[in-house]
Amino acid sequence: MRRHIGAGAALALLASCTTAEPETRADPEPSARYTFWRPAPVLEATEPAEVIKNSAVGDWRTVEPENLLIMELRGGGRVAIELATDFAPVHVANVRALARGGWWTPASVYRIQENYVVQWGLNEGEKPLPGGVVKAPPAEYDRAIAGLPIRPLGFPDSYAPMVGHVNGWPVGYDPEAGRAWMTHCYGMVGVGRDLHPDTGTGGELYAAIGHAPRHLDRNIATIGRVLEGIEQLTAHPRGTEALGFIKDPKNHIPVVRIRLAADIPPAQRPSYEVMRTDTPTFSAYVTGRANRSGSFFQRPAGGVDICNALVPTRRRVGG
Amino acid sequence: MRRHIGAGAALALLASCTTAEPETRADPEPSARYTFWRPAPVLEATEPAEVIKNSAVGDWRTVEPENLLIMELRGGGRVAIELATDFAPVHVANVRALARGGWWTPASVYRIQENYVVQWGLNEGEKPLPGGVVKAPPAEYDRAIAGLPIRPLGFPDSYAPMVGHVNGWPVGYDPEAGRAWMTHCYGMVGVGRDLHPDTGTGGELYAAIGHAPRHLDRNIATIGRVLEGIEQLTAHPRGTEALGFIKDPKNHIPVVRIRLAADIPPAQRPSYEVMRTDTPTFSAYVTGRANRSGSFFQRPAGGVDICNALVPTRRRVGG
Repeated sequence: MRRHIGAGAALALLASCTTAEPETRADPEPSARYTFWRPAPVLEATEPAEVIKNSAVGDWRTVEPENLLIMELRGGGRVAIELATDFAPVHVANVRALARGGWWTPASVYRIQENYVVQWGLNEGEKPLPGGVVKAPPAEYDRAIAGLPIRPLGFPDSYAPMVGHVNGWPVGYDPEAGRAWMTHCYGMVGVGRDLHPDTGTGGELYAAIGHAPRHLDRNIATIGRVLEGIEQLTAHPRGTEALGFIKDPKNHIPVVRIRLAADIPPAQRPSYEVMRTDTPTFSAYVTGRANRSGSFFQRPAGGVDICNALVPTRRRVGG
Repeated sequence: MRRHIGAGAALALLASCTTAEPETRADPEPSARYTFWRPAPVLEATEPAEVIKNSAVGDWRTVEPENLLIMELRGGGRVAIELATDFAPVHVANVRALARGGWWTPASVYRIQENYVVQWGLNEGEKPLPGGVVKAPPAEYDRAIAGLPIRPLGFPDSYAPMVGHVNGWPVGYDPEAGRAWMTHCYGMVGVGRDLHPDTGTGGELYAAIGHAPRHLDRNIATIGRVLEGIEQLTAHPRGTEALGFIKDPKNHIPVVRIRLAADIPPAQRPSYEVMRTDTPTFSAYVTGRANRSGSFFQRPAGGVDICNALVPTRRRVGG
């Protein structure tokens, strides 16, 4: 039985609203929900590519080998994923234990759904879970905001009271409720699950490949982000079954193995850097994304959404 | 020479959620730009798929054959595009004249850029433009809001003062400036251009295939939307040149021809429907997209962005 991201019946838990002036109507008219903002375009923004080019060594952090997951596909394709340790720690620990236990050696990509997700892994029935894997992790769908030094994006969001970045990760947050969560942007990686309270072990993972499916925020454990190689997952025929599942197993894309970089001999170990998000350089990058100024652009937007301000990453020379 | 919006007038007119105290600082801190909203999740929303299933005949409009562009790819792939007549009329008239003049018979898909666009067509130097094609169309990047019966989406947007739908099209708009424009959502089709004042003839077209590149809004002529077959454009290796251009012409994807449905014999002519956006059914659909209620979901977002509320389309039976 494959885990689905999104399927059928009905029930909804609701966030508590603790505003000073709580909205009491359950379903206000659209125009009454809030007062609209006006973007304020910045005229002299620097193009994002220029910001990256002009960045200093100290504007980047190195991805820890313990947080770097390397998936190898048949034919030589490689996908690099950074694990986010601050948001779903039990699931991330599971993913490490699964990698070290050879869970995905081999496995396959068995779902490609246009404008939604690519999913890979092994069904839990297919072999015993390695030692150290928690079989029923808690619902790590959001977390306390305390301890997260969030940089506000500075523009409105269609889903969350606020959005921003913390340690290179895109987050939505609710200061009044005191909760934060990673946002489902293009390239983000999550843990496939069945219906709650099943949260998934981590044995089946997915990456968002289209327009950000933000409705998944706070409904599933997100554990990381593809740093490089997502086109190895997207440049294939879409699955023709419901939800993009690939019917014939011989059309699945073979996964040769998935390892932690920490377990790869240093001479062969790839290495990546992620732009720090607590620097003036990153602020310049966000301003540049919100106010494109290249010769092509006539009119900067004056705003950008959290998933169109993807944090720059790069492979280290020699890595 | 770069031009920027409203040179010398980068004032931010600001609004808040629950108070009416406009900000007037030219370059406010991110957290001061606006007052954040709080989503108000709806507990009893109907799943979008159910709304579609329960819709009535009158909830849909038929795409006019004169506005339906059919692209045929070698191997039998077909891409259907609806042309939007209200936003870039000269460019749309050009596209019709190009189709009728056999401009794309044959042509090719020569650019596939991950998480951005697929582009196809013919370079203007490759053969003479057909009669009736305006060689230098005006900059139809936005238009007057007057005459557009916009349905507000009802949620904040990261780019535009307001967003909504009109006649099935996603739009951003600025009531104070009196301007509206189509938003660059996944699947939207635009006219490739060089540097302004070149706006493109329509001879080269692109479709957005990833997270909505909204920074293109108001910077390029958008002319329509892919109704069906976008996976015929996305399920291919990405171009390896800068901007995703495919280096070797033999790896381009051959376009056999592009025709208007109006010029296809009725017996072979495909037909599509688009959900009307001025109905209670569409409002229920938006509410459902903003408040996913299937058995998978634990927590409805209470909001949705304009590009994650794509207007439903369907091929007509027998069409």
